[in-house]
Amino acid sequence: MLHGVILAGGSGTRFWPLSRRDRPKQLLKLAGSRSLLQQSHDRLRGTSEEGSLLVVTNDTLAAGIRDQLPELPAEAVIVEPMLRDTAVAIGLAAVLLQQRDPDAVLAVTPSDHLIRPAARFREALREAASWAQGAGTVVTFGIPARTPATGYGYIRRGESLTPKGRLQTYRAQAFEEKPDLETAQAYVKGGEHYWNSGIFVWSARTVLDGLERHLPETHAALERIAAAWSTPERDAVLQREYEQLEKISIDYALLEKSKDIVVLEADFEWSDVGAWSALEEIYGQDAQGNTVHEATLQALEAKNCIVEGPPGRLIALLGVEDLIVVETRDATLVCHRDRAQEVKALVKQLEADPALQPYT
Amino acid sequence: MLHGVILAGGSGTRFWPLSRRDRPKQLLKLAGSRSLLQQSHDRLRGTSEEGSLLVVTNDTLAAGIRDQLPELPAEAVIVEPMLRDTAVAIGLAAVLLQQRDPDAVLAVTPSDHLIRPAARFREALREAASWAQGAGTVVTFGIPARTPATGYGYIRRGESLTPKGRLQTYRAQAFEEKPDLETAQAYVKGGEHYWNSGIFVWSARTVLDGLERHLPETHAALERIAAAWSTPERDAVLQREYEQLEKISIDYALLEKSKDIVVLEADFEWSDVGAWSALEEIYGQDAQGNTVHEATLQALEAKNCIVEGPPGRLIALLGVEDLIVVETRDATLVCHRDRAQEVKALVKQLEADPALQPYT
Repeated sequence: MLHGVILAGGSGTRFWPLSRRDRPKQLLKLAGSRSLLQQSHDRLRGTSEEGSLLVVTNDTLAAGIRDQLPELPAEAVIVEPMLRDTAVAIGLAAVLLQQRDPDAVLAVTPSDHLIRPAARFREALREAASWAQGAGTVVTFGIPARTPATGYGYIRRGESLTPKGRLQTYRAQAFEEKPDLETAQAYVKGGEHYWNSGIFVWSARTVLDGLERHLPETHAALERIAAAWSTPERDAVLQREYEQLEKISIDYALLEKSKDIVVLEADFEWSDVGAWSALEEIYGQDAQGNTVHEATLQALEAKNCIVEGPPGRLIALLGVEDLIVVETRDATLVCHRDRAQEVKALVKQLEADPALQPYT
Repeated sequence: MLHGVILAGGSGTRFWPLSRRDRPKQLLKLAGSRSLLQQSHDRLRGTSEEGSLLVVTNDTLAAGIRDQLPELPAEAVIVEPMLRDTAVAIGLAAVLLQQRDPDAVLAVTPSDHLIRPAARFREALREAASWAQGAGTVVTFGIPARTPATGYGYIRRGESLTPKGRLQTYRAQAFEEKPDLETAQAYVKGGEHYWNSGIFVWSARTVLDGLERHLPETHAALERIAAAWSTPERDAVLQREYEQLEKISIDYALLEKSKDIVVLEADFEWSDVGAWSALEEIYGQDAQGNTVHEATLQALEAKNCIVEGPPGRLIALLGVEDLIVVETRDATLVCHRDRAQEVKALVKQLEADPALQPYT
């Protein structure tokens, strides 16, 4: 069966001042009336209804996640006692799902990306699942690289495989880290590279076999956790094992070592909603290039600005351009649009100042 | 006796969103814990304690003014039924004061300028009063023009007069309207021009004689208003006469026609607090050239910005420069500092839109 696994432990500070420690990007309603997490959940439901759906997160976020997804049974929210990166989070989901369903196939997805329309994503997922039945196969979704983005990882495709459905299918030849602009331009020109959507479809067995081979200590620890899961020892074992576990991403731990990766060419719209500037793609621009979400914008000779604020709040721009203006109940950000990525650094500054920590 | 007359009917929209219809610039605490009006009042009290102090204003502002100056007797707030510009406002004060004190000397001052220190202003006022005893003499304060400002009127000085006190004193030769930059530069270089502070010291008789000669209908109307002032007819007469009165500034009506104007070279600090950029002079700039009032500023590679917001509000700037950011309970302005004067135009836009009028 196909089980959805949503990784929802990220801290997503780039959407400060809307994002806060206990309300990171995935819990924000940045695109529509449902949060990115809720949308990730809704998207998976159509496919994984036969299997279960797990959300892997941490203590800080668990309450917010349960609030946003009241339909999830309590045991569907897996709370890691500390941050151990994606190899451990996915490994934990795999070991728990395999207990219930030895043939479990996992659709592992981020909780904070935007994918539209959901129906096309579900179709792609079903197609991916048919490839992932094979022991050892990892299926990824490659997003056709429309622009030489330097903020994404890339997948280089290899030989073409006979499609099992609607999507062009290739063997994946390499995972490339975030490139510099020149390299990214070459990727786009060459036409053999996809953006890595960070969605992986594979069997629990593939995940666990990989961990056993490449991270045997992690694998053994996960086995011990699984054995204790339905006992009163669960929390103590989780805590003890997690303290020893290596922090390593699934990319380094398994994907870069796997010889059997398939890439499906996605035909859905995808965005990692990486920074405030993403609001422009989501909500569009007016004739002056301005984008506004929720708040009321009054612009006098202002252009190419992105404005976000509570409904009913008036934000007036006069003679400015290329700004991001975001207002919340207690804080405001005014940022040049080219510096949107550095909001992260700003939040670090705030966290370092005891007087400003209440705003983080 | 020397009587203070504060003109407090201005609409001061350039400090939007802090300034509103019923809370224009003079009622704002832009420089310290007392509003500009309160400071104008406090400054005059030391000189005019023997005489009375009048505040001339309109219906929209009367309640706010009484709130801010509870020590004023009710009859000290003169409420004009409609806007008729400064010649009428000053004429009304003159005709009312002359009823009580035939030798009244008026110190007419704006309500929304910043003057420091008050002690030196009071000394200057006393000196001006000694010149203004002479029938027909108008005494002005000239502010040494430090920069070629194009937003002020100028006074050209003529022959030197024997000072009666501490201040250099000249006959005023001409009032010049706001100049262009080149002209202003020539003024500063020439050293014979002062900024016109808009403060006038003259006897009630001088004002009324001037009006009788140059605006006989206005003069007659003011006489009729004065006659009805202490009767039950006051409001009806005020309304009726005001409807007919010509709207004209004191500069055009009298000053430009007067042959007997003295200019005292002011030695106090003066600002007309003309726009948000004035906050910089008032509160100073930090090492990055940023100025913050009330709010908490967190700046990351931001410079030459002016920030105003409620205490406790965090305003974070990232990678921006030359901005004015002002926050209030319901609205925010982000404006390029070179466009600060155009806030007025922005407010006009808001006023024209029924949905946005609540923000004006």
